[in-house]
Amino acid sequence: MTINAPHGPLTGLRVLEIGHFIAAPFCTRILGDMGADVIKIEPPEGDPVRGWGDQVNGHSVWWSLHGRNKRSVTLNLKAKGAAALLLDLIRECDVVVENFRPGQLARMGLGDDVMRGVRPDLVISHISGYGQDGPYRDRAAFGVIGEAIGGLRHLSDHAPGTTDLPPVRVGVSIGDSLAGLYAAFGIVSALWQRDRAGGDGAGRTMDVALTEAVLSMMEGVLPEYGAFGKVRQPTGSRIPTAAPSSAYPTADGKWMLIAANSAPLFDKLSKLIGRPDLPQDDRFTSNLLRVKNVVALDELIADWSRQLPVAEVERLLKEHDIPSTQVYTAAEIASDPQFQHRNMVRRVDDPLIGQPVLHQGVVPHVPDNPGTIRWTGPAIGQHTDEVLAEIGRSAEDIAKLRSEGVI
Amino acid sequence: MTINAPHGPLTGLRVLEIGHFIAAPFCTRILGDMGADVIKIEPPEGDPVRGWGDQVNGHSVWWSLHGRNKRSVTLNLKAKGAAALLLDLIRECDVVVENFRPGQLARMGLGDDVMRGVRPDLVISHISGYGQDGPYRDRAAFGVIGEAIGGLRHLSDHAPGTTDLPPVRVGVSIGDSLAGLYAAFGIVSALWQRDRAGGDGAGRTMDVALTEAVLSMMEGVLPEYGAFGKVRQPTGSRIPTAAPSSAYPTADGKWMLIAANSAPLFDKLSKLIGRPDLPQDDRFTSNLLRVKNVVALDELIADWSRQLPVAEVERLLKEHDIPSTQVYTAAEIASDPQFQHRNMVRRVDDPLIGQPVLHQGVVPHVPDNPGTIRWTGPAIGQHTDEVLAEIGRSAEDIAKLRSEGVI
Repeated sequence: MTINAPHGPLTGLRVLEIGHFIAAPFCTRILGDMGADVIKIEPPEGDPVRGWGDQVNGHSVWWSLHGRNKRSVTLNLKAKGAAALLLDLIRECDVVVENFRPGQLARMGLGDDVMRGVRPDLVISHISGYGQDGPYRDRAAFGVIGEAIGGLRHLSDHAPGTTDLPPVRVGVSIGDSLAGLYAAFGIVSALWQRDRAGGDGAGRTMDVALTEAVLSMMEGVLPEYGAFGKVRQPTGSRIPTAAPSSAYPTADGKWMLIAANSAPLFDKLSKLIGRPDLPQDDRFTSNLLRVKNVVALDELIADWSRQLPVAEVERLLKEHDIPSTQVYTAAEIASDPQFQHRNMVRRVDDPLIGQPVLHQGVVPHVPDNPGTIRWTGPAIGQHTDEVLAEIGRSAEDIAKLRSEGVI
Repeated sequence: MTINAPHGPLTGLRVLEIGHFIAAPFCTRILGDMGADVIKIEPPEGDPVRGWGDQVNGHSVWWSLHGRNKRSVTLNLKAKGAAALLLDLIRECDVVVENFRPGQLARMGLGDDVMRGVRPDLVISHISGYGQDGPYRDRAAFGVIGEAIGGLRHLSDHAPGTTDLPPVRVGVSIGDSLAGLYAAFGIVSALWQRDRAGGDGAGRTMDVALTEAVLSMMEGVLPEYGAFGKVRQPTGSRIPTAAPSSAYPTADGKWMLIAANSAPLFDKLSKLIGRPDLPQDDRFTSNLLRVKNVVALDELIADWSRQLPVAEVERLLKEHDIPSTQVYTAAEIASDPQFQHRNMVRRVDDPLIGQPVLHQGVVPHVPDNPGTIRWTGPAIGQHTDEVLAEIGRSAEDIAKLRSEGVI
C-alpha cells in the first residue's frame, strides 16, 4: 500500500517525530495508526528503545509494534548541516513532535521560532516530564516518577494496614503513553482549528507534561481533598463505593473478577454461591451496608470461589448472567473470541523479525474508514534516501551527507 | 465569558453528549476543556454520576470537575417527541458522543442513519465495553472488567509468589477514561479530514471499546507472547528490565520512589547510602546483574531509607541529583510548587457547592491558545431553555414540552 492510499482519518497529514523512548513515539504511533505519514528522525545508532525487551535476530519485538507505520530517517543531530537539513524537512510537515529535555532542541538551533521561520503554521508538540517551564522543568523525566507525582502510584495499592509491600507500578509505561495520547489529541485539535473553513490558519504549540497527563485522569481526588481535606486511600482489589466488586481466588490459583454491585446482581450471586439468605442479612441489605461490611462479604464469596477451578467459576457466573471475567494475561488476550472478532489481535509479517508478530489492532476503530497496519517497525534509516529524495536531494547530495556523517 | 470567545483550539465546535457515568462524559470533558461547546443530554433526574462520591449541599464535588464547561439540557428519552427534538438539536451539531449499550439508541429511533438523515456530515462516537459488534457486544460494561480483559489488572500486582493478596485496581476509572480519551482523539481526527481544504466533507463513526482502549496501551505484552510464548508477569513496585527502580520504605511509614537505573546514577546512590563498594560488587556490576540480584540490592537500599524520615530521604536524594519523589497523595499534589506554577491545581468558584472547588487544570497545555475552565458542572437542566431557544423553540413551545414531561 502506498502512503497516499486511504488508510484512516489522518490520511494526508505529515508528522515529523524527533523523539525517543516512549512518550513521543507512542504519540506518533497512534497518529500513524490513524493514517498519518510519520517520519521518525533517529540517530545513526537508532532509538534506544530498539534494544528494549526480548529480541529476535537482534530486533526487539516490541519495536515491531512501537515503530509501525513510521518511516525511519537517520540524522546525527550534532553534525554540521543537520539542523539545516531538518528545517528543509520541517518545511514539508504539518506537525513536529519531540520529547527531549526542555530547551534541548532550541540549543541545537531548532527552537519553536526557528521551525516556524520555515513553516509558519507548524503545530509543535513538546512532551516532557514536568512541562516546559517551572521549578522542576530541568529534572530528569522518568515515567515511574511522573506517575507517582500525578497520583496514580499511591492509589495502586492495597488498603492501608493490609500489607507491608509497596504500592505497585502499573506494569506498563502508562504515564508516558498517557502523555503521548494527550499530545495526539491536542495536535489534531490544533490542526482542526488551523485548517477548517473559518479556522485561523495558525500554528499552535502543545506543552504536554507526563505528570499532568496522569493528574488529568484522577477524577474526584483533588475536588474531594479541597472540599473535605479527604486524602483518598487505595482500596486494593475493591472499588471504594460499591460492593461486592473484587477479584476472588479460585481452586487453581487464578483470580476471578466479579462485579455484582447492584441489588439484582447481588441477589443472583447470593443464590449462585448457595447463600440466598445474604440479601436479607442485616449486614448486607443495602449497598452502603455491603461496603461497610465488605471484608466479611468478600470472605463469603471467596469461600465459594476457592472450591472450584477458574473455568468452572467463570461458566457458572456467565450462566447466571453476572458480570465477571478471569484476569487476562497475554495468553487469554491472544485467544479471546471478541478480540479475534474485532481484529484486535493481528498476526503481521515483519521482515526484520522473519516471522509474523502479534500486534494490537488499531484504536479507535473507524468502521467506515479504518486505520491500517501498513508496515512493521522499520530498520534504522530504512527510509532515509526515499524521504530526502522527496525534499529534492539528489543521489549525489545524499551520498555526500552520508560520507560526512550527517545521515 | 460567552461561549463564542476564544477558549482553546476547539472553539467553534459543537458536541452533543448522550452519555452517562464516566466514559462519554470524560470524552466531552476534555473536548470542552479544549474549547468545544458541549451540550449534555440528561434525564430529568440527572446523570447517576451526580450522586457519586462526597457531596456538599447535595452536590457531588467530583461533578464540579466532570461536568465543567458543559451545558445541561434535560430530556426524557422515553417521552413521545423526544427523538424529534433531539434530531433538531443534532442538526446543529458537529459531533454526537454516546455510551449506552450497543443498539440502544437505534431502538429509540436514533440510529446512525437517522441522525445522519438530518446532519449528513455528523461525526458519531459510540463508546461501549466491548465494541458495537461481536459475541460480547451485549455484555454489561463494567470498567473493572474491561481493565482485566485489556490486560492491565494482571500486571498491577506484586511478583508471583510474593503475596496471597489479589492484583489491585488502579484507584481510578482508568479504563473508562482511556476509552473517552481515545474517542476524543478519533473524533477530532475525523473532523480534520472532514473540514480541511482537500478533505472529504464526510462524517465518520467511531466504535470505541473500553477493553480495546486498555489493550492499546499494553506495549510489548502481545508481541512477546506471540514470539516466545512469554506471558508477562507483574513485578510489583519494580520495573522488569532495569534496577534499581522501586519504592523504598522510610522511618515514618512513607514510600520513596528512587530511579537510579543507570551506571552514573547507581554510583551516586551507592555513595549516598554509604556503600560506595556496590558498583564493584560482583552482584551489581551491570544492569543485567542488578536486575538478576534485585532483591538483595533493594534490601540494601531499604536498609538506608528506613532509618530516615521521608523528608530527609528526599532532601538527600535531591541534593545528590538522583531522580526520586515521594509517592504523592492528594495533599502533596495540592501543594506541589510545579503544579502551582503550571496552574494545574485551581480553585474554581462553584455556585452549586457554594465555595471554591479544587480542579485539575487543562491538559494538554496550549500556551498560545489555552483551554479554560469557563464554568463548573451545571445544575440539571440549567441550560435547557437557552439551548432550545437557540434551535428556534419559543417560550411557549418550551413550556408545553415541560408540561408534557419531555424536558
